[in-house]
Amino acid sequence: MAANIQLKLDTQYIHDSRLGLHRLSAEQLNDVYPRVGGILAEIADERRAGRHRFRELPHERPGVEAVMQAVADYHDSTDNLLVLGIGGSALGNIALQSALNPYTYNLLPREDRRGPRLFVLDNVDPVYFEAVMDFVGRDWSRTLVNVISKSGETAETSAQFLIVRNRLVEALGKAEGEDRIVVTTDAAHGTMRKIVNEQKYRSLIVPDGVGGRFSVLTPVGLFSAAMCGIDVDALLSGAAAMDAAVSNPDPAINPAAKIAAIHYLYMELGKSLHVMMPYSQQLKDLADWYRQLWAESLGKIRPDNQENVGPTPIRALGATDQHSQVQLYREGPHDKVFTFLEVEEFDVDTIIPRGFPGVEAMEYLGRSEEGTLGGLLNIEKKATALALLASQRPSMTIRFPAVNERTVGEFIYLYESVIPIMGKLLGVNPYDQPAVELGKQLTFHFMGRQGYEKMPE
Amino acid sequence: MAANIQLKLDTQYIHDSRLGLHRLSAEQLNDVYPRVGGILAEIADERRAGRHRFRELPHERPGVEAVMQAVADYHDSTDNLLVLGIGGSALGNIALQSALNPYTYNLLPREDRRGPRLFVLDNVDPVYFEAVMDFVGRDWSRTLVNVISKSGETAETSAQFLIVRNRLVEALGKAEGEDRIVVTTDAAHGTMRKIVNEQKYRSLIVPDGVGGRFSVLTPVGLFSAAMCGIDVDALLSGAAAMDAAVSNPDPAINPAAKIAAIHYLYMELGKSLHVMMPYSQQLKDLADWYRQLWAESLGKIRPDNQENVGPTPIRALGATDQHSQVQLYREGPHDKVFTFLEVEEFDVDTIIPRGFPGVEAMEYLGRSEEGTLGGLLNIEKKATALALLASQRPSMTIRFPAVNERTVGEFIYLYESVIPIMGKLLGVNPYDQPAVELGKQLTFHFMGRQGYEKMPE
Repeated sequence: MAANIQLKLDTQYIHDSRLGLHRLSAEQLNDVYPRVGGILAEIADERRAGRHRFRELPHERPGVEAVMQAVADYHDSTDNLLVLGIGGSALGNIALQSALNPYTYNLLPREDRRGPRLFVLDNVDPVYFEAVMDFVGRDWSRTLVNVISKSGETAETSAQFLIVRNRLVEALGKAEGEDRIVVTTDAAHGTMRKIVNEQKYRSLIVPDGVGGRFSVLTPVGLFSAAMCGIDVDALLSGAAAMDAAVSNPDPAINPAAKIAAIHYLYMELGKSLHVMMPYSQQLKDLADWYRQLWAESLGKIRPDNQENVGPTPIRALGATDQHSQVQLYREGPHDKVFTFLEVEEFDVDTIIPRGFPGVEAMEYLGRSEEGTLGGLLNIEKKATALALLASQRPSMTIRFPAVNERTVGEFIYLYESVIPIMGKLLGVNPYDQPAVELGKQLTFHFMGRQGYEKMPE
Repeated sequence: MAANIQLKLDTQYIHDSRLGLHRLSAEQLNDVYPRVGGILAEIADERRAGRHRFRELPHERPGVEAVMQAVADYHDSTDNLLVLGIGGSALGNIALQSALNPYTYNLLPREDRRGPRLFVLDNVDPVYFEAVMDFVGRDWSRTLVNVISKSGETAETSAQFLIVRNRLVEALGKAEGEDRIVVTTDAAHGTMRKIVNEQKYRSLIVPDGVGGRFSVLTPVGLFSAAMCGIDVDALLSGAAAMDAAVSNPDPAINPAAKIAAIHYLYMELGKSLHVMMPYSQQLKDLADWYRQLWAESLGKIRPDNQENVGPTPIRALGATDQHSQVQLYREGPHDKVFTFLEVEEFDVDTIIPRGFPGVEAMEYLGRSEEGTLGGLLNIEKKATALALLASQRPSMTIRFPAVNERTVGEFIYLYESVIPIMGKLLGVNPYDQPAVELGKQLTFHFMGRQGYEKMPE
């Protein structure tokens, strides 16, 4: 990747001769690069014409100033932040929090946290919902509710909003209760904007032309992050730096183009399962964010020939899933390509002490030069990549020098930028999601919404 | 399923004519049932000869009495329970806890919890590990450590054990510190048993002949569950009841046989991605437990023809993943079969209040006869199943009348019992995991363990 980018893309286990028939040669990549180069030029043109709006987010920073103002207004008076949102209005928030705050964050006393506890309520299971209500309901006056819905048409978020608003008003009275609501929605249109204007809720904007799954670097993802002490400027500057790299017109250098080309070529060879496997607990939920980005953008009927296309993204976790999925990954069908995320320097590391002298199954751990948990984790990654190679399973690695706002911002922007390239290679529009509509309409029908009396088909 | 079983298996969306070419007819199932019936007879014979040992667990209850004794001894003196284990020594523990204790369990004050906080440390990421150490280290004297390793050869668990033991001894002194360790391991053999005997640790047993991924209903899964107030007898009685159903020699009635036959026939039709999608936050981690069971048992090289076989299990979550994966599930390749888990009666439910009069996008939710969160969630499930059907995607549903120890015990035993049937249909041994070895040996090599000086291949 370019010199000012901190992430490194390592593709040696795509090209290794031990892969046999499952190897991609330099020639195979070179054969597809002219087409990918054409796509990069097309995207650059379209971008200048105002498309691919997510690409401008780290530069134009729409709504970010209002986010920081809201954080200044609410940070100190909030012990619990409830995010009501689902899909693209939740996955980015969860991913940022897991990556950039401690695993035990919600358990810590306030002085050890950089902000309120965070609960991202991305489901309507009543048992789960009431467990959180019971907890935050111990002090509604120090709870803040961030409702995220561009349209206001999402049944799950609307149902949650109706309930939480009632509880706030019951506990605090109408004026004070409704003051604890911040709505993130469209600047001008839709049901939720209408409600915001009528009820005079504090609001943040979902910028125009940026779909849910591309919205983590907008107020959708940034408000909860900033409330919890995450450095939004560093996230955006990481994304901006990556823009330079993924704007390179040469697909052999542009990391987004290279990732797209490799996946495309492997799909032609029947490898349509794309496994993202971070060797880092912090990056686990970024793989879940990726899962939506990939599936909803690329799982489509091709308009030109009605073919059902789209890779199936799979989230895994190293080293944990070595003890769950690696048997299948090595001996199952040759239908998978692996992307590892590796961390070079962990924020803290733990020396493994020597113990149980004479018991070699314990002693080597404390004797090893690599005898830290971080050292062990990275060795497990190396061992897994080699074991996959021995079974002719290709993998690539994205190396994070460290996990921080800068590198997470780079990663998000990199993977978002792969999408329009993959979309053009597969012949689908990566920005729509037509197949999600029927389920929504059927829900409206069964719930008795006016205008949906007839069973949709 | 049989009359005394509470779970219900609904296969109507396997047989619906709207599936077109993706429908399974009654005839197709009838054609494979003689073979499956033969397999059931074979398994019954093998079971009488002492194989399929997991089938005896709910009746023989090996080690359960010792579990209950340890709970009696440690429950009241423990505020934090650390489980050190990975793979089959973690996934069952996590699944039971998520299913049967509140989402906010660890956050609650002691009087609102049925036992200690639970931390299942199934990775060696140092940042994650130290976050938990920092939290429990606030009072080591009320922390209990349950190390789970049948052999003592698992690098991740051994490394954690060395570190945690040192911290305990540093904080409490050798005698008191080592008293806060309970080791779950083989009764007679292996490195860990040797250490237990030498150091005189309190121990619980991993019964003979039960592999890690089948061990949740042994002391491996039951100790942490019982410590956290989960009713182990009810779990085991659910499993025992399911034994009657899955022992039925008629594959048209036996639910395990039916599930295996359907998946097998669909694999023949190219549908090798098996998506388990609970519409219940509580059942989410049971789908992760299933993911190991399925992948590690069935992802194999067939010994007779060296073919790489095995379905890829995928965990999803309703309604959440409607906003992430359903676009792909409906329009992507025809490579998936879906199993929904549905809950008929939630422990608590929440009425959605009416609000925002005149705004129909909000009002219908509070007006609906189904206007509770549980009602909405089940309607979303129905809508998704129908939307998949409209795209000719087959699904089946397992209905839980309620989520409790009894039904969770039934579910675990049901899915475990599918495995030997699937193994015989696919021509693989479901109880080994040969492909996991190379990665372990490479780790030993890179970590400098004696006897692994030569790079394994």
